[in-house]
This record gives sequence, C-alpha cells and structure tokens, in this order.
Amino acid sequence: MKVLKYMLIFIPISFVAKFINASPSIIFILSCLSIIPLAGLMGEGTEEISFYSGPKIGGFLNGTFGNATELIISFFALKEGLFEIVKSSIAGSVIGNILLVVGASMLAGGLKYKTQYFNQKVVEVSSTMLLFAVIGLCIPALFTHTVNPNMLNTRYEGLSIFVAIVMISIYALSLFFSFSTHKDLCSSVHEHEGNAKWSLKKSILILVISTILIAIESEFLVTGIEPITESLGWSEFFVGIILIPIIGNVAEHSTAIVMALKNKMDVALEIAIGSSLQIILFVAPVLIFLSLIFTPMSIVFNEFELIALIATVLIANSVSHDGESNWLEGIQLLAVYLIIAASFFIL
Amino acid sequence: MKVLKYMLIFIPISFVAKFINASPSIIFILSCLSIIPLAGLMGEGTEEISFYSGPKIGGFLNGTFGNATELIISFFALKEGLFEIVKSSIAGSVIGNILLVVGASMLAGGLKYKTQYFNQKVVEVSSTMLLFAVIGLCIPALFTHTVNPNMLNTRYEGLSIFVAIVMISIYALSLFFSFSTHKDLCSSVHEHEGNAKWSLKKSILILVISTILIAIESEFLVTGIEPITESLGWSEFFVGIILIPIIGNVAEHSTAIVMALKNKMDVALEIAIGSSLQIILFVAPVLIFLSLIFTPMSIVFNEFELIALIATVLIANSVSHDGESNWLEGIQLLAVYLIIAASFFIL
Amino acid sequence: MKVLKYMLIFIPISFVAKFINASPSIIFILSCLSIIPLAGLMGEGTEEISFYSGPKIGGFLNGTFGNATELIISFFALKEGLFEIVKSSIAGSVIGNILLVVGASMLAGGLKYKTQYFNQKVVEVSSTMLLFAVIGLCIPALFTHTVNPNMLNTRYEGLSIFVAIVMISIYALSLFFSFSTHKDLCSSVHEHEGNAKWSLKKSILILVISTILIAIESEFLVTGIEPITESLGWSEFFVGIILIPIIGNVAEHSTAIVMALKNKMDVALEIAIGSSLQIILFVAPVLIFLSLIFTPMSIVFNEFELIALIATVLIANSVSHDGESNWLEGIQLLAVYLIIAASFFIL
Repeated sequence: MKVLKYMLIFIPISFVAKFINASPSIIFILSCLSIIPLAGLMGEGTEEISFYSGPKIGGFLNGTFGNATELIISFFALKEGLFEIVKSSIAGSVIGNILLVVGASMLAGGLKYKTQYFNQKVVEVSSTMLLFAVIGLCIPALFTHTVNPNMLNTRYEGLSIFVAIVMISIYALSLFFSFSTHKDLCSSVHEHEGNAKWSLKKSILILVISTILIAIESEFLVTGIEPITESLGWSEFFVGIILIPIIGNVAEHSTAIVMALKNKMDVALEIAIGSSLQIILFVAPVLIFLSLIFTPMSIVFNEFELIALIATVLIANSVSHDGESNWLEGIQLLAVYLIIAASFFIL
Repeated sequence: MKVLKYMLIFIPISFVAKFINASPSIIFILSCLSIIPLAGLMGEGTEEISFYSGPKIGGFLNGTFGNATELIISFFALKEGLFEIVKSSIAGSVIGNILLVVGASMLAGGLKYKTQYFNQKVVEVSSTMLLFAVIGLCIPALFTHTVNPNMLNTRYEGLSIFVAIVMISIYALSLFFSFSTHKDLCSSVHEHEGNAKWSLKKSILILVISTILIAIESEFLVTGIEPITESLGWSEFFVGIILIPIIGNVAEHSTAIVMALKNKMDVALEIAIGSSLQIILFVAPVLIFLSLIFTPMSIVFNEFELIALIATVLIANSVSHDGESNWLEGIQLLAVYLIIAASFFIL
Repeated sequence: MKVLKYMLIFIPISFVAKFINASPSIIFILSCLSIIPLAGLMGEGTEEISFYSGPKIGGFLNGTFGNATELIISFFALKEGLFEIVKSSIAGSVIGNILLVVGASMLAGGLKYKTQYFNQKVVEVSSTMLLFAVIGLCIPALFTHTVNPNMLNTRYEGLSIFVAIVMISIYALSLFFSFSTHKDLCSSVHEHEGNAKWSLKKSILILVISTILIAIESEFLVTGIEPITESLGWSEFFVGIILIPIIGNVAEHSTAIVMALKNKMDVALEIAIGSSLQIILFVAPVLIFLSLIFTPMSIVFNEFELIALIATVLIANSVSHDGESNWLEGIQLLAVYLIIAASFFIL
C-alpha cells in the first residue's frame, strides 16, 4: 500500500492550516486525510515489534493495538462530551468491518476467482462470538428504549459499567484462549511471512511517533466535527457511523482486500470479524472506563445503531455458515452497507 | 393441475356479474376465483415460450414473468392509491412463499417420504440472498418507525427510490450471475423435461390473452376490496398479506408441492425462495417506480409486516441450514403461518 | 446429586416457620430451598416409573412431567392473579435453559475436555423447532406492542387461546413424531442405564408425595413473592425471570452438567433445548387453558421478555450450527445470561 505513504504529506499541511487558522471544515478534512496513513504506519510498527517479541506477546500487541486509532479519536471525542459520536463510531466500526470490508473483499476476490472457499469452522467460531458480543452489548440498550426514557441516566450508568467489566473479562479470557488453551485454532491470521523490515528500535520509534501524531490529528478532527456537520448539513450520526470508522481502518481494510485477492478469504474474514470483536470487547469497555474521568457515558446505542448492528451480525452469521463466497455475495453486502449509509445520511 | 382449468368458468361468470351490477363483494370473490387459473395459464405460456427461446432468454422470461399476476394486481391497487394493500401484498408474498408453500411442500413430501434431503449449499445461497434482500428492504422502514412519524413522507420518498434502484440493480446483477458467470449453480429449477406442448404462436397467444384477462379481473378485484373488508369486517392487511398472495400464486405453489411429492425438495425450495427474491428485488422496485406516475409510494412497511417478514426470513435461513425436512417441520412452518394470519385477521 | 437430598430438611423447617407465623420473606426463602430437592425427587420418581412402563409411555411421562414443578408454581401464581410472574417465569425458563444450563455445561465440560463435539444434525432439529416455537409464541406479543395498548385485553384473549391450541397440537404431534414415525432420531436422551433403583410402588409413592409437597411449598412461595420484592426492592420480573426457573430446574440442570462432564454434550444440549421446547409447547398452553378457570391470561410477553427470548433463541441456533463447544463458548453464554439478569435486576 505504497500510495498510503504519500498521504503523509497531509500531516504538515494540516499543521499549517491549523497555524494560519483555516476554517474548521478544512482542518477536519486535512486531519482525516492525515490519520489514514498514520493508522497504517502504526499498524506496521506494531506488526514489526510483534516480530521481535515472539508470537504470544506479538499476538497480544496486534490484538490490542489493532484499533488504537479509533480508540484515540474516540478518547478526544469523549473529552469533548461527544457521546453520540463515540457510540456511533463503535457501531459503525462493526458495521463497516462486516459489510464494507467483507463485501469489498468478496467482490474483489470474486472478480478474480469464480468461487472462493474458506474454513467454515474457524469463521463460525468468530461469528458466533460476534453474535454473543453484540447481543450482550445491545441488551442494556434494548431494555432502555422500552422503558420511560426519563429514568435512563440514573440507573443505566451502573449497568454500563457492569457490561464493560463483563466484556473486557471475556476479552482477556479470549486472549488466554487463543494464546494458551486453543492456540492451534487461532494461528492463521497473524503468521509472519518473510523477515522483519525494520529494526526493533526503528519499529518502536515509528509506533511512538505515529501514535503522537494520531493524537494531535484526532484533536483537530474532533474540533472540526460540529462545524462540518453544520456547514454541510450532515447528521452527526453519519460522521460517527460512516466517516470515522473508515478513516481509522483504511489500512486494515486494504489488507483484507489484498488477502482476498491472494485467495486467502479466511484471513480476510478473520481480519474483519476479529477487528469487530476487538471493538466490542476491548475498545467499547475501555471507552466506558475512560469516560468516568470526564462524564460517565452509558453504553446505550440509539435505535438506528441497534438495528444496523443486529442486521449486520445476522448477516455475518449467515455469510460464515456458507463456507463459500462470490462476487454477487460481495455486492449484496455492499448494497446493505449503502442502504444503511443512505439512511443515516438523511436522518 | 387439471382442476385449475375448470376454474376458467369463473371468468365469464364474473363478467356477467359485473354486467348485471352484482354486489362488489360477489364480484370480488368471482374475480379471485378467475385469477387463480389465469395465473396458472400465464405461467404455462411463459414456460412454453422459454422452450423456444433457449435457456438464457427462457430463464429471464421465467424469472421476470413469474410474479406477473401480483405485479398486475398491485398496479391497479396502486392506481387506486391503496398503498397499504400493495405493501402488505409484497410482504405477504414473501411470507406465504416461505411459510405456506415450503410448509405445505414439506408436509406433503414428508407424508410420503420419511426424510427428504436437499442440496444445502444451493438453498443456502438463495436463503442468504433472501436475508440480505429483506434486511435491505426493511432498513428504511425500521429507521422510519423510530423517528417522529410526522417527518416520514418528506425525506423517505427519496430513500425509497434509492433502495428501489439498489434492489433492481442487484436483480439485474443476479440474472447476469445465474446466466453468465455462475450458470452451473442455478440450472436445477427451470430445466425442461420432455417436449413443448404448444406451438410458439399458440404460447404467445395464450400469454397475451391471459395477461389481458388478468388485468381486467384485477381491476374487478381491486374495486371490491373496500366493500368486502367493510361488509365482512376483515382488516385491509388481512386481504393484502394473506388473500392476494394466495390468489396470485396458487399455480406456482401447486408446482412446488408436486415437486416435493416427487422427492425433489431442492426444486420446491428454489421455487419458493426464488419467487420471494423476485418479489423483493424486482416487483417491489418496479412498483415504487410505477407509483411515481400516480402518487409516490414510499417502501415503508408497517411494524406488523416488518415483524412477519423478519421472522419469516430467520425461519427460511434456519430451515435451509438443515439440509433435511420431514412432516413435523412442514407442520411447524404452517403453524407459524396460521398464527401470523390469525394475528392479521384480528387487527 | 446426594447433596440435594440433605436439602429436604428445609421442608419441615418451612412448615414450622409457617406455623409460628414467621415473616413472609423467610417463608419464601425456605419454600425455595424446599422445592429444589423435591423437584429432583419428582424427576427421579418419573424416571423410575418410566423404567417399568416401557420406552413409549416412559418417554411421554418424562416429557410431560419434566417441567411439572414450574407448572405447579405457576398454577398457584395464576390463582393469585400474578400474571406477570407466570409469564416471566415461562420466558425465564427458556432463557435459563439455553444460556445458564448450556453455558454451565459447556464451561464445565470444556474445562475437562479441550473441544467437545456433538451431533450437529440432532441438535439442529431441536433448535430449529425452538426457533419456530419462540417465533410463534412471540408473534401475538410483537403485534400487541405496536398497537394501541388500550385495545389489548379485548381481542388478544382469543388470539392467546388460538396460539395455545396450535402450540399444544404441535406438542402432541411432536410426541407422535418422536415415538412413532421418527423414533430413531429421538432416542438418545432418555435411554436407561442400569436397573431400576426403586420398586414401581415406591416410585409412584415418591412421585405422589413429592407432588403434594411441591404444591404446598409453591403456595408458600407465591404468598411470599410480594413481601420479598417489596422488602428487598427486587423487581417482580427478576423473581419470575431468574429465581423461579432456577428453583424449578436445579435438579434437571445438574443432570445436564453431569452429562457434559461425561463428554456427552449431545445429551446435555438435548436436555436444555428439550426442556425449553416443553415449556413453550406444553407448559405455556396448559397455563393459558388453566387461567380460563380464574381470570383469562393473554400470552403477551412484555418487551424485555421478548428481547431476551429472541436473543436466546438466536444464540441457541448459532451454537447448534457449530457442532463443537469449548470453555470460552460456555463463558460467553453465561456472560449473556449475567447481562440479562443484571438488566432485569435494575428494572
């Protein structure tokens, strides 16, 4: 993905724009364009470090830093009290991973190969886990929407923290599961091919610098959300559900598509479903805990996010039972994504 | 299905009834009884023409004219502004195909054979596609019902047209998929056995005449809907969800049951799921486009239709994963249909 | 499960407490503790009698008396007009069977064996049947919640009776299915190992005495529900969804876990799914019929129960497609149960 590297030029441009007090909408767009290659760089840095650290710690690093960009953006949104953006970008990451990434992978792969096969068993394990995780995450919201909305804030904070503790415990247990008791089941995705590209020192340096730059650009981005939604007439949900997840995941997404083009549909699916699981089991609880520093955020999705999440997870389960994919299946996933995006756009 | 032929006698009777100004309820019933054999005749005509036109055009004709009766009835209902009837007959066709037709096929076949097997892979492809299509079709409605109902009509028309374009594009792509890139996967249903029964000329003549007669009877039927719902105390939804789909599909349904009795459960399932797909991907978008001539209809199902549609598609997916069927499974599908019908009846 | 026998001591203690007019909360707790071993004893009695009566009648007895404890408790709750408790304990039994029992079985079994395999086909048949049953049971409720809530009571009683007749007919047909046309499919669960422990006379005596004692203790329990919910601040739903189903099923649940520890995951799953099916197809309709003696109860679950039921049945279907289980899957099921319980607790 060499083309991403050239996008690093947007970092200095965004700094200049900030310095000359350009309009917040322009800074928003520039920071989006800067974060895309930085997220890719951070991913590469993590991958390289995991090379030196051995498979166990490497797997843990890959697993935990995989969605670091979204975590950083959401942290700054949280600080600004933009709860709706934070929650919709959690939902949007899952939706984007399953519908957009899997859809694009199946379409791209399906144009090259007539039918692509994947290991049904392995994908089913992940997609069943995703079903559990989404149901667990959505139950407090589903309960909340059927009660008098005025009594929400009082008792549901406690429930959110409880759910967050359950989720992060399952995340810890699932890491133990993959790296200890059942490591044979889970080794396919992050096997390293070839040699390390960078030295350990260089890798750590790249990781640290890209993290710092992402943090700065995220603050630019978050400050620009309100002005851009107002000036363009976009709904806040659209920014959270569609835009932020795409920005944070372009690098990761392109890897999935590359894997599909190499006829490794298993890996493409594992990246997409694995990343979704991480969002729900790790990123969402961490954000709930972090929110306690500022104003406690309850993990109550709105009805649109719930509908989109549940539809997505049903589709993920249906796709994984299949064991096969073709271009038409890819297009259908993309079509559902388009319809969801259009619905959020007109909200 | 020779017994259907005798029902053609209801056509002249319905004309006489109209001529002598009989009560609209009687004309409604007579037009229902007339459409049943006409729909069968139109199906046969299409089948015969596809014999002469070769598999590609034949498959296209069969695919596109398969739900012509419902399209014609809905067109006249649309003209009269009976949007609720149109939308509920779209939902009712899918529900009837999956629960009533598959249920009756599994029951009939299961009474003859202890366990019937079908090619899981092929049926799963269709039922996954059905899941996508139903979710895509339902998302605007699901979003709508959670927003202030007063803001519906303004922005949702545009969304309906967008969804219609997406759906019909997928329909076109799926025809290309079945007749070009993956024709090996999709050949089982419409293979011709034996020779043509009629000459090409006679087939076209029958097709044209039956289409014209269906159009006339549909107008009789639509005019009678309001009087009959009033005089019998039926809900409009009951007519749309249960009655119209049955009338338009008796001939097709009987084919599915005949196939089940021949132990060709694959074909029976493909007829039912394929017909449902056609309704969603072709009939529904065409009706939305046609409605632009009169008053634009937004594709927003009511909550009952949504519940029944989503329940149906979950059942279709569950049944197809199985790969087997027996009489008890058939009865269970019929039981869910009965409960849905009873619920709409008392609305 | 010898430890359960020692709990029989709570029966005389509860009688003494009632006699000395102890606080209703204490009597509630003592009656709960008494019912647990009595339910186990009744189960054993039924099992022993089925030994003497041959497989057909034995299977019928086991099937029909399997949830007798819940039926008795619900009968007394019905008599007191505690409809919400009755309905939530129906929903809670299904939820508890699938999430708590299957979860605990998979966790216990998974700690002993790395991966446990089960016959996917057999479990899929039951879980598909469970999906149908839950959808059928929930449709009237789903319809009801979207209509004006004031018109509920008038017409929905008739619908409830209709649904009850459909459900109990399917129950009768499914018994015919298992013991007549497809008995080869369904023999795995209740095969007897070894010899009878008790004589037929003693078995009948134990069954009769335990049934009488359960009836008395159930009346104690029901009388204590209101005082205990008030004094502890628990919601009525929590008692119905979580507490009553656990009390009525401890003995049965422990059998499932014992089977999982013997690496017979098929049997563990069949016990849990079979018991859920029985609740929906037999216990729920019988309670609706019984309610006609007192005040007719409509089978309209509230939104929380619906959400929890539908989530549970989707999870059951996902788990059964898998064909494998491990400790992490068990923990995930328990986590969803915990989140549901916590949500009902704070209601």
